[in-house]
Amino acid sequence: MTAISRLETATLSTAVESVAVEYYQIPLAEVLSDAKHGDHYHFELVVCRIRTADGFEGCGYTYTGGKGGRAIYSLINDELKPWLQGKDAARIEHLWEGMQYHLHYVGRGGLLSFAISAVDIALWDIKCKRLNLPLWKVAGGASNKTPCYAGGIDLNFSEAKLLDNIQGYLNNGFKAVKIKVGKEDYREDVARVKAVRELIGPDLEFMVDANYSLTVEKAIRFGRAIDQYNIGWFEEPTIPDDYQGYARIAEAINIPLAMGENLHTIYEFNYAAQQAKVGFLQPDASNIGGVTGWLKAAQLAYAYNLPVCSHGMQELHVSLMSSQANCGMMEVHSFPIDQYTKRPLVIDDNGLAVAPDTPGTGVEFDLQLLRPHQKML
Amino acid sequence: MTAISRLETATLSTAVESVAVEYYQIPLAEVLSDAKHGDHYHFELVVCRIRTADGFEGCGYTYTGGKGGRAIYSLINDELKPWLQGKDAARIEHLWEGMQYHLHYVGRGGLLSFAISAVDIALWDIKCKRLNLPLWKVAGGASNKTPCYAGGIDLNFSEAKLLDNIQGYLNNGFKAVKIKVGKEDYREDVARVKAVRELIGPDLEFMVDANYSLTVEKAIRFGRAIDQYNIGWFEEPTIPDDYQGYARIAEAINIPLAMGENLHTIYEFNYAAQQAKVGFLQPDASNIGGVTGWLKAAQLAYAYNLPVCSHGMQELHVSLMSSQANCGMMEVHSFPIDQYTKRPLVIDDNGLAVAPDTPGTGVEFDLQLLRPHQKML
Ligand SMILES: [Mg+2]
Ligand SMILES: [Mg+2]
Repeated sequence: MTAISRLETATLSTAVESVAVEYYQIPLAEVLSDAKHGDHYHFELVVCRIRTADGFEGCGYTYTGGKGGRAIYSLINDELKPWLQGKDAARIEHLWEGMQYHLHYVGRGGLLSFAISAVDIALWDIKCKRLNLPLWKVAGGASNKTPCYAGGIDLNFSEAKLLDNIQGYLNNGFKAVKIKVGKEDYREDVARVKAVRELIGPDLEFMVDANYSLTVEKAIRFGRAIDQYNIGWFEEPTIPDDYQGYARIAEAINIPLAMGENLHTIYEFNYAAQQAKVGFLQPDASNIGGVTGWLKAAQLAYAYNLPVCSHGMQELHVSLMSSQANCGMMEVHSFPIDQYTKRPLVIDDNGLAVAPDTPGTGVEFDLQLLRPHQKML
Repeated sequence: MTAISRLETATLSTAVESVAVEYYQIPLAEVLSDAKHGDHYHFELVVCRIRTADGFEGCGYTYTGGKGGRAIYSLINDELKPWLQGKDAARIEHLWEGMQYHLHYVGRGGLLSFAISAVDIALWDIKCKRLNLPLWKVAGGASNKTPCYAGGIDLNFSEAKLLDNIQGYLNNGFKAVKIKVGKEDYREDVARVKAVRELIGPDLEFMVDANYSLTVEKAIRFGRAIDQYNIGWFEEPTIPDDYQGYARIAEAINIPLAMGENLHTIYEFNYAAQQAKVGFLQPDASNIGGVTGWLKAAQLAYAYNLPVCSHGMQELHVSLMSSQANCGMMEVHSFPIDQYTKRPLVIDDNGLAVAPDTPGTGVEFDLQLLRPHQKML
C-alpha cells in the first residue's frame, strides 16, 4: 500500500457524508439549431450535492443538449456515489484521478467526463466555502473579470431574425458575438457572415462556429470566402477527432481555429494543442472533468502559448476564465443555465463578465425556478 | 434533404419494429484481478434485442468489468430505442453513423461506444439471418478458424496457482497463453514470466498484459528484463492515451506492443496505428461500435500492415477474427460469456477456435442460465 492510499483510512471531518443527484429537463424558449446536433428543444441538467461530515455542502452540475442525461445520472448515482462515501472531500486531485480509474473501462472521456465534472464541481464548491473565498481567487486569482461574447445557436434563424438576435446581444452590452455556420449551400453562410459584419461594424469581435459539420476541403473553401470579414476564430470546422485535418485547414486559411467543447480528456487537449494548429482551446468544465479538468486544460493551453476560452455554463466559467493569466474570451451560451441560479451572469459597462465574490463557486440554483423541471428517475 | 436521408421515408419490411434491453450481473467463479482495474467479482451484460417488421429478430450485447452497465442500459433504452424505431435495419452503416452523431455531444467514444455496439451486433445478427449465412462468411469469409490464446486475469494468484491455471489452459488444448503483470515490485513479475515460460516450454506463444499500469520508464525496464523469455507481445504497458509514450517504449525494447481494448473510436485506432508503433491492434466489438466498428478497425490494421487481434467476447470474435485476412490471435477471455450461450467456444485439435456455421452471429444466449442474473431497471 502506498503512502497516498494509506491516508484514506483516517477518520476525517472532511469525509464525504452524503451524495445526492437530481435530474432536470429544462425547456428552451424557442427551438435552437446547429449544423450537426440538429434541433434543441430543451437541455438537461444533472445536479450533484455533496455534504461532508463537518457540515459543508457543495453543489456541482453538468448539462447536455437534451440527450444522455439519464445515463450521467446513473454513473453518478449507481457508480460514483457509493465509491465517494467516506472518502476525504478535501483531496480533490486524488478523487478526480480515482474516479477516472474507478470507471476507466467504460470511460477514458466520453460520458464519464460529464459525471466526474458534476462531482468535481461540488468538491470545489466545498473547498472554496471552507476557505471562505470565491472560486476566481482559489482557482488562480488573475482577475475577477473576463472578456466574453454572445454565442448564438441560430443556424435555423432567417437572416432577418439572425440580425435581430445579434442586435439584441449588442443592446445587452456584448462587445463580441458568434454565429453558427454550416448551411447546405456555403454561399448562404457567407452572406450571413457579411450581413452580421455590416450590422456590428468593423471593430467588434466576430466568430463563426460550424459544429464540426464540414469536410476539410469545404472548411478551407469557406474559410477563404469569409477572410475579408475579419473573423476572430473559426470554431470546430470539422470533426474533433481529426487533429491533423484541423492542421490542414489552419495552414490553408488566415483565420485561426478553435476547438475544445467536444474534447473530454486532457490527453485529447494535448493532441489538439500539439497537432491541430489551433489558435484557441475551449474546455468546458461540465465535460472535461469539472474545475480540476478545466484548470488542467487551461494550464496546458498556457504551456502551448494559447489563450484559454470556454464553452457553455457561463455562470461557472466566469470565475475560471477570470482566474487565469491566459484568459481569452468566455462564451455566453444560449442555454440559459445562469437564469436558473440566484445570480444570473453580470456584464459590466465595458462588456466584461464579472465573477461572483461569494465563497464557493458562486453558482447556487434557484429551486423555485428549477423544481418544475425535475424528473424523478 | 440529401438523397441518403430521403430513403428513410419509405415503408419497409426491414424497418425496426421493436427494441428491448436486458441487464444482467453475472458472478465470477472467483475474484479476478489486474493491475489497474482492481478486483472483479462479476461482469455486467447488457443485451439488446431488435425485431423488424417482417419478423426477423437479432440479438446484440455488450459487457463491462462490473461497472457502468446501468448507464449503458439507459443510453440504449432512453436514447437509442426511440431513435431506432421505424428506421431501416438493413442500412447498418447509416444507422451506425446516425447513432454516433445522434448522441455525439455525450459521446465521441467512451460509454456511448458500448451502447452502439449492442445495437450494431443485433443489426448484424439480423443481416446474417436474412442472408441465411454465418457471420464469418458475411464479415469477410477468409476462414472459419482463428488462432487463439487463453488470457488470464491472474495478477492476484500466487505463483503456484498461476502455474496451475496455465496448466489448466494447456490441458484444455490452448497453444498460447497470456498473463497479467504489474506487481508493485517488477522483479516479481519477471519471476512469474520466467516460471510460466519454463512450464510451457520454449515453443508455445506467451504474452504479457500490464493493463496500462506502468510509466513509460518502468515499462521499458520491465520489457528489457523479460526479453530472454520470448514474449509474443507486451499489452497495454502504459495508459492508452499516450500514443507517443507507446512509441518510446516500442523503440526501446525488442518485444512488440499491443493495444486496443480501451480505444473506443476508429480515430483512436488510427492515432494508435500511426503514432504508437504497436505490433498488434486489439479492437473489442463490445466497445468499438459492434461488428461495424470492429471491421473498420480490422481494415485499418490491414492498411497499416498490422495483424488484428481481439479482446473479450470470444463467442462473437471467433467469427470476426476468422473472417479477416490479417487475422492475428483471438483472446479467450476469463469472463466466460460464451458459457451462457447455446454454443460455448469450440477449440479444435490444433488449438484453433472454430466459428459457428449457424445463420446470424451464432451467439444465442441460454435464458435458463442467464435469467437468474437479470436485474430489472
Ligand atoms: Mg461551439
Ligand atoms: Mg488486456
